[in-house]
Amino acid sequence: MGSVGPVTPQQMNFSEPLALKSGALLADYWITYETYGTLDAERSNAVLVCHALNASHHVAGTHADGSLGWWDNMVGPGKPLDTDRFFVIGVNNPGSCFGSTGPMHLNPANGRVYGADFPVLTVEDWVDAQARLMDRLGIERLAAVMGGSLGGMQALSWALRHPRRVRHCVAIATAPNLSAQNIAFNEVARRAIVTDPDFHGGHFYAHGVVPKRGLRVARMIGHITYLAEDAMDERFGRRTRSAGSGIDGEAEIGFAYSTQDIEFQIESYLRHQGDKFSEYFDANTYLLITRALDYFDPAREHGGDLARAFAAARAHPGGVGFLLVSFVTDWRFSPARSREIVKALVDNRIKVSYAEIDAPHGHDAFLLEDPRYHHVMRAYFERIAAESTGLA
Amino acid sequence: MGSVGPVTPQQMNFSEPLALKSGALLADYWITYETYGTLDAERSNAVLVCHALNASHHVAGTHADGSLGWWDNMVGPGKPLDTDRFFVIGVNNPGSCFGSTGPMHLNPANGRVYGADFPVLTVEDWVDAQARLMDRLGIERLAAVMGGSLGGMQALSWALRHPRRVRHCVAIATAPNLSAQNIAFNEVARRAIVTDPDFHGGHFYAHGVVPKRGLRVARMIGHITYLAEDAMDERFGRRTRSAGSGIDGEAEIGFAYSTQDIEFQIESYLRHQGDKFSEYFDANTYLLITRALDYFDPAREHGGDLARAFAAARAHPGGVGFLLVSFVTDWRFSPARSREIVKALVDNRIKVSYAEIDAPHGHDAFLLEDPRYHHVMRAYFERIAAESTGLA
Repeated sequence: MGSVGPVTPQQMNFSEPLALKSGALLADYWITYETYGTLDAERSNAVLVCHALNASHHVAGTHADGSLGWWDNMVGPGKPLDTDRFFVIGVNNPGSCFGSTGPMHLNPANGRVYGADFPVLTVEDWVDAQARLMDRLGIERLAAVMGGSLGGMQALSWALRHPRRVRHCVAIATAPNLSAQNIAFNEVARRAIVTDPDFHGGHFYAHGVVPKRGLRVARMIGHITYLAEDAMDERFGRRTRSAGSGIDGEAEIGFAYSTQDIEFQIESYLRHQGDKFSEYFDANTYLLITRALDYFDPAREHGGDLARAFAAARAHPGGVGFLLVSFVTDWRFSPARSREIVKALVDNRIKVSYAEIDAPHGHDAFLLEDPRYHHVMRAYFERIAAESTGLA
Repeated sequence: MGSVGPVTPQQMNFSEPLALKSGALLADYWITYETYGTLDAERSNAVLVCHALNASHHVAGTHADGSLGWWDNMVGPGKPLDTDRFFVIGVNNPGSCFGSTGPMHLNPANGRVYGADFPVLTVEDWVDAQARLMDRLGIERLAAVMGGSLGGMQALSWALRHPRRVRHCVAIATAPNLSAQNIAFNEVARRAIVTDPDFHGGHFYAHGVVPKRGLRVARMIGHITYLAEDAMDERFGRRTRSAGSGIDGEAEIGFAYSTQDIEFQIESYLRHQGDKFSEYFDANTYLLITRALDYFDPAREHGGDLARAFAAARAHPGGVGFLLVSFVTDWRFSPARSREIVKALVDNRIKVSYAEIDAPHGHDAFLLEDPRYHHVMRAYFERIAAESTGLA
């Protein structure tokens, strides 16, 4: 297994406005994307990878600055999603802060930075923007669309909005909608950002400041929910900041008895995660993306009946094929939520494979290398490849 | 079953400094407390009730302003902890913001408000302060000490520090220490407060402001962890702010597509909880109390061996008797954590009763009326009363 190697992001301009679910229009925007592998002559081997909250078009390979793609362990030559067989597209969603048009860019309507005026986007809007990009790349039908977490919601939405344009939907560690608790965590994070005095109602760019305090707290909350409680106990437990740095290996200095200083390693870890995040992530993007998560709920327009929502995936003969994967220790998007989707598919007699992986890493497991997980992914993509070449 | 009726808080001054676990001293302080029922001639029917994060000495009955005690459903004439039989003491811990000396009071050393200079207190310090109050009330030995959550930790600590002074320890919805995830939630809440520009390093009183933004976020985070996920789904689900307020009962207005306005009822509920809390709770108290939770870990001084820690509870013939209660849906202090305590007691051949209640309300269940839970409590206190009168 090798790496995709050096990659360079590409940009595509869309001068035709995108009609959004909210009724607003996103005018004249850019989409940043990357591709790995080669599109075959039949244009039948394209796989679109959708990103979650804190990710981008940079799925695999390395950028000039040395940064590795966020799913490099999954996508590459000989990897589960094998770029020797598939043409893989990583796309950055509008509203993001990693290249595609977002809140930090100029609003063509008035020449000022969008800030809080950037339109609120939904999963469905992202999927439609991605479909337009596929048009421009000359890809009428994807071999698969794939994503984890919020990326998984996009994969599901593709199967519902554009069922004739996608042969397979691979949705990992995802859910048919957010629970009240999920929304609650998002809302606390948003309040931390919005009430930071440096947020300035979302127009902080003009003030030359960044609501870092809010972003830090938001990231810390998020991080707690990405990790499994047991894994956190194993990795950090109640170890104090001084453990292992004492005079001998066993030594542990006593507590400082301080409410503001770091006492426990978990505190140090979380603060570090928060600090890093606040250096590069855009506050308006955080609000937009968590809202897109909140809104996603394909059953809503069908009286809450998920099976009726998924009937759309039967649109063509054979229908879209599905692979769903969940992780036992993921308490943010638990296996029970994936099973709801499986049930809705089965109720529609749609082909679905489902794997529940007993990995210890919580929600983050979808990004990590686990042999059982990668085996499932590899086998599914081999099946897709065999179909493409008529060997299925 | 009746109510305790009108009650008036009392205050006791302690001019002798309290030596704290940190090595600091708490000089010349006041303790606020309340009592219900009558102390018998043998002074053998006293039960001390310890409070958790957001509570006080006001356990039962009503204050002149009409406010009801936080455990009024548990404590009163004919209630599980029957004030016709027991003399019940509610005590406010130093460092709190509800009456006993705390960060908003004057530091006798310099005549200025303590603020962030208030000494960091531990569960053990609170227990020692409570023991001093018992001395002054002429109570050598308690029939029981009782508490839930952080209050349960105080009850456990009584049995370890003053085993000859307590016949029974009733510890509900508690844990032998906080997990890494518990500490993580506390730390995020603290960072929200400490990084609020209105915190002023803990000396906000002098600036005439209150770090309300931080307190709101802290309370919202806490609240999510007090509720069970299923109960949250049942109570709020994905209902929007407008549900039920439409033209007819079924009507639900569409989303506003806003990142800052309320869309879902759970958001409205959490914001309301945060707003209320920020109006009355002291920021320095919040920091102190969450730190006391973090520090509590009786096994720490025994190489992490909880059974060795609980050997102290065998100090007198028969030892302290224990009742532990946990709630199946409590993910903050799960039943597994109570079972660790039960095991440590059993390893010491200490008498322990344990009940695991399948109540739907998460951690908050310990404050609520559940027939199975209250039955267990009532039966245990009836047993204690029978012992007191020699009928056991």
